[in-house]
Amino acid sequence: MTDPTLRILGISGSLRARSYNTAALRAATELLPTGARMEFAEIGDLPLYNEDVKEKGFPTPVARLREQIRAADALLIATPEYNFSVPGVLKNAIDWASRPPDQPFNEKPIAIMGASPGMLGSARAQYHLRQCFIYLNAHILNKPEVMISLAPSRFDENGALKDESTRALIRQLVEALVEWTRRLRR
Amino acid sequence: MTDPTLRILGISGSLRARSYNTAALRAATELLPTGARMEFAEIGDLPLYNEDVKEKGFPTPVARLREQIRAADALLIATPEYNFSVPGVLKNAIDWASRPPDQPFNEKPIAIMGASPGMLGSARAQYHLRQCFIYLNAHILNKPEVMISLAPSRFDENGALKDESTRALIRQLVEALVEWTRRLRR
Amino acid sequence: MTDPTLRILGISGSLRARSYNTAALRAATELLPTGARMEFAEIGDLPLYNEDVKEKGFPTPVARLREQIRAADALLIATPEYNFSVPGVLKNAIDWASRPPDQPFNEKPIAIMGASPGMLGSARAQYHLRQCFIYLNAHILNKPEVMISLAPSRFDENGALKDESTRALIRQLVEALVEWTRRLRR
Amino acid sequence: MTDPTLRILGISGSLRARSYNTAALRAATELLPTGARMEFAEIGDLPLYNEDVKEKGFPTPVARLREQIRAADALLIATPEYNFSVPGVLKNAIDWASRPPDQPFNEKPIAIMGASPGMLGSARAQYHLRQCFIYLNAHILNKPEVMISLAPSRFDENGALKDESTRALIRQLVEALVEWTRRLRR
Repeated sequence: MTDPTLRILGISGSLRARSYNTAALRAATELLPTGARMEFAEIGDLPLYNEDVKEKGFPTPVARLREQIRAADALLIATPEYNFSVPGVLKNAIDWASRPPDQPFNEKPIAIMGASPGMLGSARAQYHLRQCFIYLNAHILNKPEVMISLAPSRFDENGALKDESTRALIRQLVEALVEWTRRLRR
Repeated sequence: MTDPTLRILGISGSLRARSYNTAALRAATELLPTGARMEFAEIGDLPLYNEDVKEKGFPTPVARLREQIRAADALLIATPEYNFSVPGVLKNAIDWASRPPDQPFNEKPIAIMGASPGMLGSARAQYHLRQCFIYLNAHILNKPEVMISLAPSRFDENGALKDESTRALIRQLVEALVEWTRRLRR
Repeated sequence: MTDPTLRILGISGSLRARSYNTAALRAATELLPTGARMEFAEIGDLPLYNEDVKEKGFPTPVARLREQIRAADALLIATPEYNFSVPGVLKNAIDWASRPPDQPFNEKPIAIMGASPGMLGSARAQYHLRQCFIYLNAHILNKPEVMISLAPSRFDENGALKDESTRALIRQLVEALVEWTRRLRR
Repeated sequence: MTDPTLRILGISGSLRARSYNTAALRAATELLPTGARMEFAEIGDLPLYNEDVKEKGFPTPVARLREQIRAADALLIATPEYNFSVPGVLKNAIDWASRPPDQPFNEKPIAIMGASPGMLGSARAQYHLRQCFIYLNAHILNKPEVMISLAPSRFDENGALKDESTRALIRQLVEALVEWTRRLRR
């Protein structure tokens, strides 16, 4: 009897079309181990979080995002760093998706990566993001940390990840995420 | 010759109508020292940050926010805590407002406060927010820290801040902000 | 066939005799589920970390601490908060114990709690401590968070934890730690 | 009438003889603007912080450190990163020096830098250190941030800082510290 396919939901924290973070997620889809597949979340059509709106019911794009998170076995989040922290866009998606009832991040295995033009590869954003998921009781992978520094030098003009050491690191990350997911489930 | 009036821009990180953070900002307006006045920023009509959109020019609500920040002598930010960090809504406003050219937070004196239903009074969000403003080269007041815990017990049904010790603390905060602003300007 | 006894190592971040954190650890020993027992680490006789000293071999108290960590199935750390972060004393112990080879925190299940006289119950120290253990690849329990605020009011003059809600919370913590340890081991 | 010489106290967070952080501080002494001079603090002979000891009076090395901090016009701290945070050794020195009465960090202008073998140049330690100084009401310089990555490649075998771009950055830092100190004093 074979292990069923493991479903990973990829979430990019950047909305721009040529985002390095979205490109890194696309690269991850090519690096998945056998038995895992990835789909992508859309967070660009969510409204700004407002509890008054929420009390009338989740807006359609929020309900869709929550359903995608719930259906996923694990998440892979690629976050840029804006102003030394998590982009508002990504945090807004988390704020919406996390509202009760049935908080969908609960017990979810999550891997984080990120890319930035500077030397720190979105490290500061990644640590803030990790703190959010303590509250949400997700299980964040410790290692490897994937901080893609000097991002413009690592992708080609079509957004393909050409840097081999970064590809190897992302492969390690998705393999570790799959193993972590299976370990937590046993 | 008198010192001209000092203009403080109040920014609430919550959009809901009966927000404790917005209520705390309203309370602050009654506690200002002579020679200071406060106006309020609107961040609920901003789009989600997208660099592709930005490159076509700042959307009108963003341009308005940037102009308000630029015109202010100091900022007073009231932040709730969502998922152990800064609300996406507030971070999105900062992400938009901070884009070049003429980054308007540069050298701006800022005081932070926050309210939450729990014991920590939005502390975790406040420290993340402080980190953002290192990058933006704003000058955040160290003290007093205003962490309004158990918020529902401190406001009446009309959103008036009835708790005297919290009122005294906010008065100290705005007085310290005015003094800090004058000191940095000299 | 019964599950062998699970060994928890308690580490207090404070050296003073009447420490609330050490007292909270003592209370934890009375609240352990069946099948778990606790012993205590000593960190007060370690030298200050110096790599030049380390290269001549681990000093005896360090070697002892490393052995205790290695032999434990899980750790329970009680940290005060000094200057909004982890006490130097506790961090010094971690800095020594974590040096290669055979880094003993690797894959170790850990629960964190803390007590402070103020409202935040050492929260700021706890989040900094969590960040250390990402590097060390330990598995920190997310919940419950045990932040013992207003500590002097919760212990009697002999250092016994008299506050029932705090006792219940610590019981939840150690039960969750035992369950987490068994889950990770399966 | 000339401005009196500004006294900067340098504190290295590493005790090892060939520390890159100590070497970076030594480099800073050669890069000071006219009108500033630097001396060095010793933190390696402090005991581990213990409030029971403190209550009998500050040990001699602590009293000496407190006096040096008090006498300084500004501090320059060079911190390595141990386990994604501030070294216990450095934090222990801050924990001792900061105890009442007459907390000597109060209102002190401080610049932070750091070196590490990895890509992040002690960034994680620097942000934790910044949080400590909120409590202590010091005034930390925002910019430039000096994160000396890949440290072994930037110093020669005698510990001299040979990397010109790092020298230029440290020069900017000490110049900015002197300006910040004068600005806060006016």
